[in-house]
Amino acid sequence: MKLIIANKNYSSWSLRGWLALKAFDVPFEEIKLSLFTEDFYNTLSLYSPVQKVPVLVDGDLSVWDSLAIAEYVNETYLSGKGWPAEVKKRALARSVVAEMHSGYSALRNEMPMNCRAKRKIELSQRAQQDLENICHLWESLRSQHQDQGPYLFGEFSLADAFFAPVAFRFVTYGIELEGVAKDYHQAMLNHPAMQEWLADALTETDIVEEDEAGEPV
Amino acid sequence: MKLIIANKNYSSWSLRGWLALKAFDVPFEEIKLSLFTEDFYNTLSLYSPVQKVPVLVDGDLSVWDSLAIAEYVNETYLSGKGWPAEVKKRALARSVVAEMHSGYSALRNEMPMNCRAKRKIELSQRAQQDLENICHLWESLRSQHQDQGPYLFGEFSLADAFFAPVAFRFVTYGIELEGVAKDYHQAMLNHPAMQEWLADALTETDIVEEDEAGEPV
Repeated sequence: MKLIIANKNYSSWSLRGWLALKAFDVPFEEIKLSLFTEDFYNTLSLYSPVQKVPVLVDGDLSVWDSLAIAEYVNETYLSGKGWPAEVKKRALARSVVAEMHSGYSALRNEMPMNCRAKRKIELSQRAQQDLENICHLWESLRSQHQDQGPYLFGEFSLADAFFAPVAFRFVTYGIELEGVAKDYHQAMLNHPAMQEWLADALTETDIVEEDEAGEPV
Repeated sequence: MKLIIANKNYSSWSLRGWLALKAFDVPFEEIKLSLFTEDFYNTLSLYSPVQKVPVLVDGDLSVWDSLAIAEYVNETYLSGKGWPAEVKKRALARSVVAEMHSGYSALRNEMPMNCRAKRKIELSQRAQQDLENICHLWESLRSQHQDQGPYLFGEFSLADAFFAPVAFRFVTYGIELEGVAKDYHQAMLNHPAMQEWLADALTETDIVEEDEAGEPV
């Protein structure tokens, strides 16, 4: 099984798909393409109609989009253990993940993932609201489940994989957290798979031009 | 079980969640709120941290976001029959749904769902590309499965629920289709649940001001 991703420094969607495998010890071959290169588009066009990363290639099956990858890995390789076991908790986990998948656009636009950078920015009111909503969500979920583990639903779940890029963003943009939200942020940064990704991101040598916001262009 | 939705004329996300129940004959109580009213925000704030429709309320559980609702209904009420039975088809269905869930933003912005309107518009290049991608996808999936039924994966599935608003949009904006894409479009418009939604949309009396694009403001 192969997972096609882009530059680890920038590609937040790649990180989500990658963690859906790596954090659950599912073996896979990682194929990293450099953003905006000919190789990037040529290789992706073999596997995905939308030419976006990540793409999971399992035999003759291609699964694109991080959320479809998460669900596929969950049912095919994790026997359902990627989500919380209890049906209501699972529905809640999928709600917050779906929200991350299609929402928080102001925060995502104004704080692009860039693991190597350290920046201070002035957030728009909408991005500030996104930030507060995420912190509130982290506090609430972490508080409800902290007797079961340090992650959003106790043990590491696919919900954590979807918030992982936000954990790196908060470091880059110097966002200060408090209380259990801070504890959760630290637990995410300490996770071995997150450390592995970060080490790779900090040392990768693909040169990509960045705009003022730190977004590759 | 209650499903909270907004005006049927406009609310494309509501339609997706509603079809996830209605098209599979799952009984529910429909609670329709008028967009932008005090009642809209007050009622939603009881059930959803993000104050968006649709929200499914099942006992003391609230599930928000159409995709999380689809997955919850699928496992709790449909015994998994909401998605194609075969694992690879299911992964494909989830890929195209996830793509719809977070993508096609140009088409969604330029062609807001408005069942009552008839409009001609000039699409941007990006929206035109979205339109071509959707038509190509419809053709490809419908062609692969037409011996099994008239929908994207043969029988009606959650994938169809996610493309349903596009079917109404194509009528509003006079988009002409051909071949199997046209057949699929017609099959969607003929579906009893789609006809029921449309009849309600055409007769609902909530007055909402629209901008030039036909988007409620």
